[in-house]
Amino acid sequence: MPDAEGLAEPLRSRWSPSVFDDAHELTSAEVATLLVAASWSPSAGNSQPWRFVVALRGSPTHAAFVPHLSRGNSGWVPRASLVLVAGCEVVDVKDADTARYDLGQASAHVTLQARAMGLHTHQFAGFDKPAAALALGVPESVRLMAGIAIGVRGDPADVPERDREREDRERTRRPLGEIAFTAGDPGDPGDPGDPGGGWRPWAG
Amino acid sequence: MPDAEGLAEPLRSRWSPSVFDDAHELTSAEVATLLVAASWSPSAGNSQPWRFVVALRGSPTHAAFVPHLSRGNSGWVPRASLVLVAGCEVVDVKDADTARYDLGQASAHVTLQARAMGLHTHQFAGFDKPAAALALGVPESVRLMAGIAIGVRGDPADVPERDREREDRERTRRPLGEIAFTAGDPGDPGDPGDPGGGWRPWAG
Repeated sequence: MPDAEGLAEPLRSRWSPSVFDDAHELTSAEVATLLVAASWSPSAGNSQPWRFVVALRGSPTHAAFVPHLSRGNSGWVPRASLVLVAGCEVVDVKDADTARYDLGQASAHVTLQARAMGLHTHQFAGFDKPAAALALGVPESVRLMAGIAIGVRGDPADVPERDREREDRERTRRPLGEIAFTAGDPGDPGDPGDPGGGWRPWAG
Repeated sequence: MPDAEGLAEPLRSRWSPSVFDDAHELTSAEVATLLVAASWSPSAGNSQPWRFVVALRGSPTHAAFVPHLSRGNSGWVPRASLVLVAGCEVVDVKDADTARYDLGQASAHVTLQARAMGLHTHQFAGFDKPAAALALGVPESVRLMAGIAIGVRGDPADVPERDREREDRERTRRPLGEIAFTAGDPGDPGDPGDPGGGWRPWAG
């Protein structure tokens, strides 16, 4: 799989650190810019189904959310300057599956805007979503999908080995032939060896 | 709602034109870069559930896809240089809803990488997904979610008024108070006027 070096910024340098500086704070204006990035994401029929809970480290919202993190996430996530808990409307939308797709796009826009601002993000799905929704008073029409931890990188020496090791995992991706395909070639009717059609890896 | 002027490129200048130049062609290397952008998107447990059908204008794959566009999309989509038909694995994944979220992120990465390359994209959900999946031979474990039309802008004079008018629609977004919230404030137990808790618009 080609590495990310050929991509444009801020995509090229995006990755998901697990060691955040627990003294760094985001300003209200910075949080607003991240939310504006989400809001200008595209969505089906401009439905904008994304909803974000803004949990700044040290706030009551953060305190209500943190107890519902999975064990593996309970160490590193609370050190981040901000967690945006990302959910989507699933009732008053044309298609709830598309709402999840649209929310993912909005979260990607947050992530890339953050990178352009010199911040790092690390998304996670490991938290008790129903319990967090209850603790946060999330309306029943909204389904929580992911958390986005946002901040600046901290010193690995400040965190337990388990969280430090997360960052050392090799970043790998599937080869393009496993994610890109072509189809629909009618083949050569006169050649039994060329049946055409069908789903096959994109050959470039 | 604040406009997009305060965002970083390529987010700032991203929008979804409906008039594509039907003479422009993408190179294989450009298509590969878009797919590499998708592949370096983050996903739950690095599951990478995204799958893309590569339908270059003029290819058999494109010919197999186009008949399944909705009436409203049948005029403008085929003029684009490329359609990536975006789907996700929904069987061999931990959570199919999260797969849809992850696919949305990968599509956003495609869209923003394209913008950085001077291209425009316009995503659409309006096509007969089961029929397109059948025509393309998409495996049953993959659910098609959206199309991404990619190319360069064409001359509005070359397209029917209906497609020209799409581009003139005002771009609007919900105010931040409708997409960002806080919660969990315990309130002041001594003040009946401050019950705290609950879901309320983020106040910045």
